[in-house]
Amino acid sequence: MRISEHVQEMSRWSEAQRRDGRRIALVPTMGFLHEAHLCLVRDGKKRADRVVVSLFVNPKQFAPSEDFAAYPRDFGRDRELLERESIDVLFHPASDEIYPAGFQTQVSVDKLGLFLCAPHRPGHFQGVATVVAKLFNIVRPHVAIFGEKDYQQLQLIRRLVQDLNFDIEIVGHPIVREADGLAMSSRNIYLSPEERQAALCLSRSLGLGACMVRRGETRERVITEAVRAEIEKEPLAKVEYVTLCDSATLEAVEAVQGTALLALAVRVGKTRLIDNRILKPME
Amino acid sequence: MRISEHVQEMSRWSEAQRRDGRRIALVPTMGFLHEAHLCLVRDGKKRADRVVVSLFVNPKQFAPSEDFAAYPRDFGRDRELLERESIDVLFHPASDEIYPAGFQTQVSVDKLGLFLCAPHRPGHFQGVATVVAKLFNIVRPHVAIFGEKDYQQLQLIRRLVQDLNFDIEIVGHPIVREADGLAMSSRNIYLSPEERQAALCLSRSLGLGACMVRRGETRERVITEAVRAEIEKEPLAKVEYVTLCDSATLEAVEAVQGTALLALAVRVGKTRLIDNRILKPME
Repeated sequence: MRISEHVQEMSRWSEAQRRDGRRIALVPTMGFLHEAHLCLVRDGKKRADRVVVSLFVNPKQFAPSEDFAAYPRDFGRDRELLERESIDVLFHPASDEIYPAGFQTQVSVDKLGLFLCAPHRPGHFQGVATVVAKLFNIVRPHVAIFGEKDYQQLQLIRRLVQDLNFDIEIVGHPIVREADGLAMSSRNIYLSPEERQAALCLSRSLGLGACMVRRGETRERVITEAVRAEIEKEPLAKVEYVTLCDSATLEAVEAVQGTALLALAVRVGKTRLIDNRILKPME
Repeated sequence: MRISEHVQEMSRWSEAQRRDGRRIALVPTMGFLHEAHLCLVRDGKKRADRVVVSLFVNPKQFAPSEDFAAYPRDFGRDRELLERESIDVLFHPASDEIYPAGFQTQVSVDKLGLFLCAPHRPGHFQGVATVVAKLFNIVRPHVAIFGEKDYQQLQLIRRLVQDLNFDIEIVGHPIVREADGLAMSSRNIYLSPEERQAALCLSRSLGLGACMVRRGETRERVITEAVRAEIEKEPLAKVEYVTLCDSATLEAVEAVQGTALLALAVRVGKTRLIDNRILKPME
């Protein structure tokens, strides 16, 4: 496994691989890797001849009040995990390599950047879109793999790729969960044992929503209120939002018709967690 | 000369050229070509094995009050001129090929998009940055050539390329002028014979500014006021702005030190014209 810290070195490697007709997969991460990241990596290996993992804790996607400084980092462990997966390049640039002095260009996806997490995380999706556009131009992958836990991010990147004519296939990988249902996240490390237990209310409440739909309920208000009530049973949890929306546009819907997305953000103690589930009405 | 109206066809052609190791130059235009465009094309031919000219009157770079509908178009003539230059591809997409339903991604260059023309043309530079990012991804040129008449656009595109890590060389081509000094522009067609004569005040006033600097004047206020007064001698002309600024950042300067840019926008009758000149103090 090659470790590259520089944009130019990374680009040249990719250029040479492309010239040799090799297909490149990119898995963008912020590090502190867990099993879900490794699932994306293994997916990448199936889809391409070469796998690049980027590890960059992107300051521009954290709002000023958020956990950029505290975000968990363990480069040694990440490197070891990726070596074990036999990836080809770990791209690990410093912040001033990605944002040198004078940097001032922003990419934004207007409508998809309005819903769900957006009002709660000012600047987040612009930061994501900008760094992803950069990574795409630096690594020049044929395929890039993102987790469906960050469903809004995934849809936004699909749109970005289509709108700016990047010639890249975007793959969404299903949410990877712990045995008890908690969606894997680097931020789970923040949770105390009590909070870890309390955090099960996210997947449990999504399960309740899915169950209601299977039994014939389609009304948005009825479903989201039940989900919210389920979360509020948990004293350590505080709902940020519970939304039922169109799974492509993320616009709110009044009823489940075709496929809908049930998405939520919950604070458990001081930790902000997100989760989601695709719902389909009875057929 | 191949004419391509479709993004996918254009991309595939470029991809094949790149695979064969050919270097591609792109000259982006809005058509209604004149000698200055052809100079960019000839420059491109010297710098690459293949030349692509894009012809797209980009609705997103016109403010609602501007001349999008009236902008001069003559595809037959443009095609003929380009055939004579033996370019390889004329990329001529329809508007909904570039902006299909659901399009919502914007690229903006924050600081460079604040100065000079920006306050007078709301949304213009975001429209430029967005379409240029798209053209770069569709055509995938090694080099792209822009005229220095649109100096702010050129600097903004240099910044965009650097910030988003496009692997493209950006070339600025010196302003091409008519024999009497008027900078060539597709919009010159709007001018009546009297206005055409009045429009000489742009290059004349820039000449005055350059002359003042050669004679030792460096103060911004003194220079811009003299330039403005020179333009205001012309009854058909109305100054929009006269600015002396840093030639790289476009920030206003109080004095000419090293290289400075003297830039102006003037309405002659109903036609908005721009021009600029690099000034260097006596050495």
